[in-house]
Amino acid sequence: MRVFGIDCGTEFTGYGVVESCLGSKSSSLIRIAAGTIRLSKKEKTPQRLAQVYAELTALIALHQPEVVAIEDVFFSANAKSALKLGQVRGVAMLAAASCSLPVAEYAPLSVKSSVVGHGLAAKEQVQFMVKRLLNIENAFDSADAADALAIAICHIHTAQTLELQGAAR
Amino acid sequence: MRVFGIDCGTEFTGYGVVESCLGSKSSSLIRIAAGTIRLSKKEKTPQRLAQVYAELTALIALHQPEVVAIEDVFFSANAKSALKLGQVRGVAMLAAASCSLPVAEYAPLSVKSSVVGHGLAAKEQVQFMVKRLLNIENAFDSADAADALAIAICHIHTAQTLELQGAAR
Repeated sequence: MRVFGIDCGTEFTGYGVVESCLGSKSSSLIRIAAGTIRLSKKEKTPQRLAQVYAELTALIALHQPEVVAIEDVFFSANAKSALKLGQVRGVAMLAAASCSLPVAEYAPLSVKSSVVGHGLAAKEQVQFMVKRLLNIENAFDSADAADALAIAICHIHTAQTLELQGAAR
Repeated sequence: MRVFGIDCGTEFTGYGVVESCLGSKSSSLIRIAAGTIRLSKKEKTPQRLAQVYAELTALIALHQPEVVAIEDVFFSANAKSALKLGQVRGVAMLAAASCSLPVAEYAPLSVKSSVVGHGLAAKEQVQFMVKRLLNIENAFDSADAADALAIAICHIHTAQTLELQGAAR
Protein backbone atom coordinates (compact mmCIF):
# COMPACT_ATOMS: atom_id res chain seq x y z
CA MET A 1 0.00 0.00 0.00
CA ARG A 2 1.34 3.41 -0.99
CA VAL A 3 -0.03 6.46 0.87
CA PHE A 4 0.33 10.15 0.06
CA GLY A 5 0.19 12.17 3.29
CA ILE A 6 -0.50 15.91 3.24
CA ASP A 7 -0.02 18.41 6.06
CA CYS A 8 -1.80 21.56 4.90
CA GLY A 9 -0.64 25.04 5.84
CA THR A 10 -1.18 28.55 4.52
CA GLU A 11 2.57 29.08 3.99
CA PHE A 12 4.09 25.60 3.92
CA THR A 13 2.30 22.43 2.90
CA GLY A 14 4.20 19.24 3.67
CA TYR A 15 3.85 16.00 1.76
CA GLY A 16 5.16 12.54 2.43
CA VAL A 17 4.80 9.32 0.46
CA VAL A 18 5.11 6.07 2.43
CA GLU A 19 4.87 2.48 1.22
CA SER A 20 4.22 -0.53 3.41
CA CYS A 21 5.91 -3.77 2.36
CA LEU A 22 4.48 -6.91 3.87
CA GLY A 23 7.15 -9.44 4.81
CA SER A 24 6.51 -13.04 5.90
CA LYS A 25 6.33 -12.13 9.59
CA SER A 26 6.30 -8.35 9.76
CA SER A 27 5.69 -5.32 7.64
CA SER A 28 8.17 -2.55 6.97
CA LEU A 29 7.62 1.04 5.99
CA ILE A 30 9.60 2.80 3.28
CA ARG A 31 9.77 6.51 2.65
CA ILE A 32 9.28 7.05 -1.08
CA ALA A 33 9.39 10.84 -1.00
CA ALA A 34 8.85 13.81 1.27
CA GLY A 35 9.06 17.54 0.87
CA THR A 36 7.50 20.93 1.29
CA ILE A 37 5.48 23.15 -1.01
CA ARG A 38 6.56 26.67 -0.08
CA LEU A 39 4.14 29.41 -1.06
CA SER A 40 5.40 32.83 -2.01
CA LYS A 41 4.15 35.61 0.27
CA LYS A 42 4.29 37.97 -2.70
CA GLU A 43 1.59 36.08 -4.57
CA LYS A 44 -2.13 36.63 -4.00
CA THR A 45 -4.25 33.85 -2.50
CA PRO A 46 -5.76 32.50 -5.77
CA GLN A 47 -2.26 32.16 -7.28
CA ARG A 48 -0.97 30.48 -4.11
CA LEU A 49 -3.85 28.02 -4.21
CA ALA A 50 -3.16 27.37 -7.89
CA GLN A 51 0.48 26.60 -7.01
CA VAL A 52 -0.52 24.11 -4.26
CA TYR A 53 -2.97 22.44 -6.63
CA ALA A 54 -0.50 22.20 -9.52
CA GLU A 55 2.33 20.83 -7.34
CA LEU A 56 0.12 18.31 -5.51
CA THR A 57 -1.45 16.92 -8.69
CA ALA A 58 2.03 16.61 -10.27
CA LEU A 59 3.41 14.83 -7.16
CA ILE A 60 0.42 12.48 -6.99
CA ALA A 61 0.82 11.65 -10.70
CA LEU A 62 4.54 11.02 -10.14
CA HIS A 63 4.25 8.78 -7.07
CA GLN A 64 1.00 6.97 -7.94
CA PRO A 65 -0.37 6.42 -4.41
CA GLU A 66 -3.53 4.41 -3.73
CA VAL A 67 -4.89 6.83 -1.18
CA VAL A 68 -4.39 10.37 0.11
CA ALA A 69 -4.30 10.92 3.89
CA ILE A 70 -4.86 14.37 5.36
CA GLU A 71 -5.04 15.80 8.85
CA ASP A 72 -8.51 16.62 10.14
CA VAL A 73 -8.15 19.94 11.97
CA PHE A 74 -10.81 21.54 14.12
CA PHE A 75 -8.56 23.01 16.79
CA SER A 76 -7.74 26.19 14.93
CA ALA A 77 -7.25 29.22 17.14
CA ASN A 78 -9.77 31.44 15.41
CA ALA A 79 -12.27 31.47 12.57
CA LYS A 80 -10.10 33.66 10.33
CA SER A 81 -7.12 31.31 10.37
CA ALA A 82 -9.44 28.29 10.06
CA LEU A 83 -10.96 29.82 6.91
CA LYS A 84 -7.49 30.36 5.39
CA LEU A 85 -6.37 26.85 6.29
CA GLY A 86 -9.64 25.50 4.88
CA GLN A 87 -8.88 27.12 1.52
CA VAL A 88 -5.62 25.15 1.21
CA ARG A 89 -7.30 22.01 2.52
CA GLY A 90 -10.09 22.30 -0.06
CA VAL A 91 -7.58 22.53 -2.88
CA ALA A 92 -5.62 19.53 -1.49
CA MET A 93 -8.78 17.41 -1.38
CA LEU A 94 -9.66 18.57 -4.89
CA ALA A 95 -6.21 17.43 -6.08
CA ALA A 96 -6.92 13.95 -4.69
CA ALA A 97 -10.43 13.85 -6.19
CA SER A 98 -9.13 14.98 -9.58
CA CYS A 99 -6.74 12.00 -9.54
CA SER A 100 -9.71 9.72 -8.58
CA LEU A 101 -8.11 8.86 -5.24
CA PRO A 102 -9.96 8.33 -1.95
CA VAL A 103 -9.19 10.75 0.89
CA ALA A 104 -8.79 9.55 4.49
CA GLU A 105 -8.90 12.12 7.29
CA TYR A 106 -7.23 11.68 10.69
CA ALA A 107 -7.45 13.85 13.78
CA PRO A 108 -4.08 15.08 15.17
CA LEU A 109 -4.66 12.90 18.25
CA SER A 110 -5.02 9.79 16.07
CA VAL A 111 -1.84 10.61 14.15
CA LYS A 112 0.20 11.02 17.34
CA SER A 113 -1.33 7.89 18.92
CA SER A 114 -0.60 5.87 15.83
CA VAL A 115 3.03 6.97 15.51
CA VAL A 116 4.17 7.49 19.11
CA GLY A 117 1.64 5.47 21.10
CA HIS A 118 -0.17 8.29 22.86
CA GLY A 119 -2.12 11.31 21.65
CA LEU A 120 -0.36 13.96 23.71
CA ALA A 121 3.12 13.36 22.27
CA ALA A 122 5.32 16.39 21.58
CA LYS A 123 6.30 17.36 18.03
CA GLU A 124 9.88 16.14 18.69
CA GLN A 125 8.64 12.71 19.81
CA VAL A 126 6.58 12.37 16.62
CA GLN A 127 9.59 13.32 14.48
CA PHE A 128 11.83 10.89 16.39
CA MET A 129 9.41 8.02 15.80
CA VAL A 130 8.84 8.90 12.13
CA LYS A 131 12.64 8.74 11.60
CA ARG A 132 12.80 5.41 13.40
CA LEU A 133 9.84 3.82 11.63
CA LEU A 134 11.10 4.90 8.21
CA ASN A 135 14.81 4.35 8.92
CA ILE A 136 15.68 7.97 8.11
CA GLU A 137 18.98 9.42 9.28
CA ASN A 138 18.96 12.84 7.63
CA ALA A 139 17.00 15.82 8.95
CA PHE A 140 13.53 16.38 7.56
CA ASP A 141 12.99 18.89 4.77
CA SER A 142 10.63 20.68 7.17
CA ALA A 143 8.42 20.00 10.20
CA ASP A 144 5.50 19.92 7.76
CA ALA A 145 7.13 17.18 5.68
CA ALA A 146 7.66 15.16 8.90
CA ASP A 147 3.99 15.67 9.82
CA ALA A 148 2.88 14.56 6.37
CA LEU A 149 4.93 11.34 6.73
CA ALA A 150 3.33 10.80 10.17
CA ILE A 151 -0.14 11.15 8.63
CA ALA A 152 0.75 8.61 5.92
CA ILE A 153 2.07 6.19 8.58
CA CYS A 154 -1.13 6.70 10.59
CA HIS A 155 -3.19 5.61 7.59
CA ILE A 156 -1.07 2.48 7.05
CA HIS A 157 -1.28 1.51 10.74
CA THR A 158 -5.04 2.09 10.78
CA ALA A 159 -5.53 0.03 7.62
CA GLN A 160 -3.37 -2.81 9.03
CA THR A 161 -5.32 -2.79 12.31
CA LEU A 162 -8.65 -2.93 10.47
CA GLU A 163 -7.31 -5.79 8.34
CA LEU A 164 -6.16 -7.77 11.41
CA GLN A 165 -9.52 -7.17 13.10
CA GLY A 166 -11.28 -8.40 9.97
CA ALA A 167 -9.10 -11.53 9.84
CA ALA A 168 -9.73 -12.25 13.54
CA ARG A 169 -13.53 -12.22 13.10
CA MET B 1 -17.48 45.13 -17.64
CA ARG B 2 -18.73 41.63 -16.93
CA VAL B 3 -18.39 40.29 -13.36
CA PHE B 4 -18.85 36.77 -12.04
CA GLY B 5 -20.00 36.91 -8.40
CA ILE B 6 -19.74 33.89 -6.12
CA ASP B 7 -21.42 33.35 -2.75
CA CYS B 8 -19.68 30.30 -1.28
CA GLY B 9 -21.45 27.83 0.98
CA THR B 10 -20.87 24.27 2.13
CA GLU B 11 -24.26 23.13 0.77
CA PHE B 12 -25.29 25.80 -1.73
CA THR B 13 -22.94 28.02 -3.68
CA GLY B 14 -24.64 30.88 -5.52
CA TYR B 15 -23.31 32.51 -8.65
CA GLY B 16 -24.41 35.59 -10.52
CA VAL B 17 -23.07 37.19 -13.69
CA VAL B 18 -23.68 40.93 -14.12
CA GLU B 19 -22.68 43.23 -16.96
CA SER B 20 -22.50 46.99 -16.75
CA CYS B 21 -23.40 48.88 -19.93
CA LEU B 22 -22.25 52.47 -20.05
CA GLY B 23 -24.81 54.80 -21.65
CA SER B 24 -24.22 58.45 -22.59
CA LYS B 25 -25.37 59.76 -19.19
CA SER B 26 -25.82 56.76 -16.95
CA SER B 27 -24.82 53.13 -16.70
CA SER B 28 -27.21 50.22 -16.50
CA LEU B 29 -26.72 46.77 -15.06
CA ILE B 30 -27.83 43.61 -16.81
CA ARG B 31 -28.17 40.18 -15.26
CA ILE B 32 -26.52 37.73 -17.63
CA ALA B 33 -27.05 34.63 -15.49
CA ALA B 34 -27.62 33.51 -11.92
CA GLY B 35 -28.07 30.18 -10.22
CA THR B 36 -27.11 27.81 -7.47
CA ILE B 37 -24.66 24.92 -7.31
CA ARG B 38 -26.38 22.42 -5.01
CA LEU B 39 -24.07 19.88 -3.40
CA SER B 40 -25.30 16.40 -2.63
CA LYS B 41 -25.17 15.53 1.07
CA LYS B 42 -24.55 11.91 0.08
CA GLU B 43 -21.20 12.72 -1.51
CA LYS B 44 -17.97 12.96 0.46
CA THR B 45 -16.21 16.32 0.78
CA PRO B 46 -13.55 15.77 -1.96
CA GLN B 47 -16.28 14.83 -4.47
CA ARG B 48 -18.37 17.84 -3.43
CA LEU B 49 -15.38 20.13 -3.92
CA ALA B 50 -14.72 18.53 -7.30
CA GLN B 51 -18.35 19.28 -8.27
CA VAL B 52 -18.07 22.96 -7.24
CA TYR B 53 -14.79 23.28 -9.16
CA ALA B 54 -16.12 21.60 -12.32
CA GLU B 55 -19.35 23.64 -12.36
CA LEU B 56 -17.63 26.97 -11.63
CA THR B 57 -14.95 26.51 -14.31
CA ALA B 58 -17.65 25.51 -16.84
CA LEU B 59 -19.79 28.56 -15.94
CA ILE B 60 -16.80 30.91 -16.12
CA ALA B 61 -15.84 29.49 -19.53
CA LEU B 62 -19.45 29.92 -20.70
CA HIS B 63 -19.97 33.50 -19.52
CA GLN B 64 -16.44 34.87 -20.11
CA PRO B 65 -16.29 37.43 -17.29
CA GLU B 66 -13.36 39.80 -16.83
CA VAL B 67 -13.19 39.37 -13.08
CA VAL B 68 -14.46 37.12 -10.29
CA ALA B 69 -15.88 38.77 -7.14
CA ILE B 70 -16.21 36.80 -3.93
CA GLU B 71 -17.36 37.59 -0.40
CA ASP B 72 -14.65 38.00 2.19
CA VAL B 73 -15.94 36.27 5.31
CA PHE B 74 -14.36 36.42 8.73
CA PHE B 75 -17.52 36.46 10.81
CA SER B 76 -17.98 32.70 10.91
CA ALA B 77 -19.54 31.41 14.11
CA ASN B 78 -16.81 28.90 14.89
CA ALA B 79 -13.52 27.56 13.57
CA LYS B 80 -15.04 24.26 12.37
CA SER B 81 -17.59 25.91 10.08
CA ALA B 82 -14.98 28.47 8.94
CA LEU B 83 -12.66 25.61 7.92
CA LYS B 84 -15.45 23.95 5.90
CA LEU B 85 -16.43 27.21 4.24
CA GLY B 86 -12.75 27.89 3.52
CA GLN B 87 -12.51 24.60 1.63
CA VAL B 88 -15.24 25.69 -0.81
CA ARG B 89 -13.78 29.21 -1.00
CA GLY B 90 -10.33 27.82 -1.85
CA VAL B 91 -11.76 25.79 -4.71
CA ALA B 92 -13.75 28.81 -5.99
CA MET B 93 -10.60 30.97 -6.03
CA LEU B 94 -8.70 28.16 -7.75
CA ALA B 95 -11.42 28.05 -10.45
CA ALA B 96 -10.85 31.78 -11.09
CA ALA B 97 -7.07 31.40 -11.10
CA SER B 98 -7.24 28.43 -13.48
CA CYS B 99 -9.19 30.66 -15.91
CA SER B 100 -6.50 33.38 -15.46
CA LEU B 101 -9.03 35.79 -13.94
CA PRO B 102 -8.33 38.27 -11.12
CA VAL B 103 -10.27 37.77 -7.87
CA ALA B 104 -11.74 40.73 -5.95
CA GLU B 105 -12.85 40.18 -2.35
CA TYR B 106 -15.52 42.25 -0.58
CA ALA B 107 -16.59 42.21 3.05
CA PRO B 108 -20.34 41.61 3.65
CA LEU B 109 -20.60 45.18 4.97
CA SER B 110 -19.20 46.57 1.71
CA VAL B 111 -21.61 44.47 -0.37
CA LYS B 112 -24.64 45.71 1.61
CA SER B 113 -23.42 49.32 1.57
CA SER B 114 -22.86 49.18 -2.16
CA VAL B 115 -26.26 47.70 -3.00
CA VAL B 116 -28.59 49.16 -0.36
CA GLY B 117 -26.68 52.21 0.87
CA HIS B 118 -25.87 51.09 4.39
CA GLY B 119 -23.97 48.14 5.81
CA LEU B 120 -26.58 46.90 8.26
CA ALA B 121 -29.29 46.22 5.67
CA ALA B 122 -31.44 43.10 6.10
CA LYS B 123 -31.28 40.22 3.62
CA GLU B 124 -34.71 41.20 2.25
CA GLN B 125 -33.56 44.77 1.58
CA VAL B 126 -30.52 43.49 -0.32
CA GLN B 127 -32.70 41.18 -2.42
CA PHE B 128 -35.20 44.01 -3.10
CA MET B 129 -32.44 46.31 -4.33
CA VAL B 130 -30.75 43.60 -6.43
CA LYS B 131 -34.11 43.03 -8.19
CA ARG B 132 -34.53 46.75 -8.76
CA LEU B 133 -30.99 47.39 -9.98
CA LEU B 134 -31.14 44.46 -12.38
CA ASN B 135 -34.79 44.90 -13.41
CA ILE B 136 -35.70 41.39 -12.29
CA GLU B 137 -39.34 40.49 -11.68
CA ASN B 138 -39.12 36.77 -11.00
CA ALA B 139 -38.04 35.25 -7.71
CA PHE B 140 -34.38 34.38 -7.28
CA ASP B 141 -33.20 30.83 -7.81
CA SER B 142 -31.99 30.95 -4.20
CA ALA B 143 -30.88 33.45 -1.54
CA ASP B 144 -27.31 32.45 -2.46
CA ALA B 145 -27.84 33.38 -6.12
CA ALA B 146 -29.21 36.77 -4.98
CA ASP B 147 -26.14 37.27 -2.77
CA ALA B 148 -23.83 36.38 -5.65
CA LEU B 149 -25.54 39.00 -7.84
CA ALA B 150 -25.13 41.53 -5.01
CA ILE B 151 -21.40 40.77 -4.81
CA ALA B 152 -21.05 41.25 -8.59
CA ILE B 153 -22.94 44.58 -8.36
CA CYS B 154 -20.67 45.64 -5.49
CA HIS B 155 -17.62 45.08 -7.68
CA ILE B 156 -19.09 47.12 -10.55
CA HIS B 157 -20.05 50.00 -8.21
CA THR B 158 -16.60 49.94 -6.61
CA ALA B 159 -14.86 49.94 -9.99
CA GLN B 160 -17.06 52.82 -11.21
CA THR B 161 -16.37 54.86 -8.07
CA LEU B 162 -12.62 54.32 -8.42
CA GLU B 163 -12.85 55.35 -12.09
CA LEU B 164 -14.77 58.56 -11.24
CA GLN B 165 -12.26 59.37 -8.50
CA GLY B 166 -9.43 58.86 -10.97
CA ALA B 167 -11.11 61.12 -13.54
CA ALA B 168 -11.72 63.84 -10.92
CA ARG B 169 -8.05 64.00 -9.94
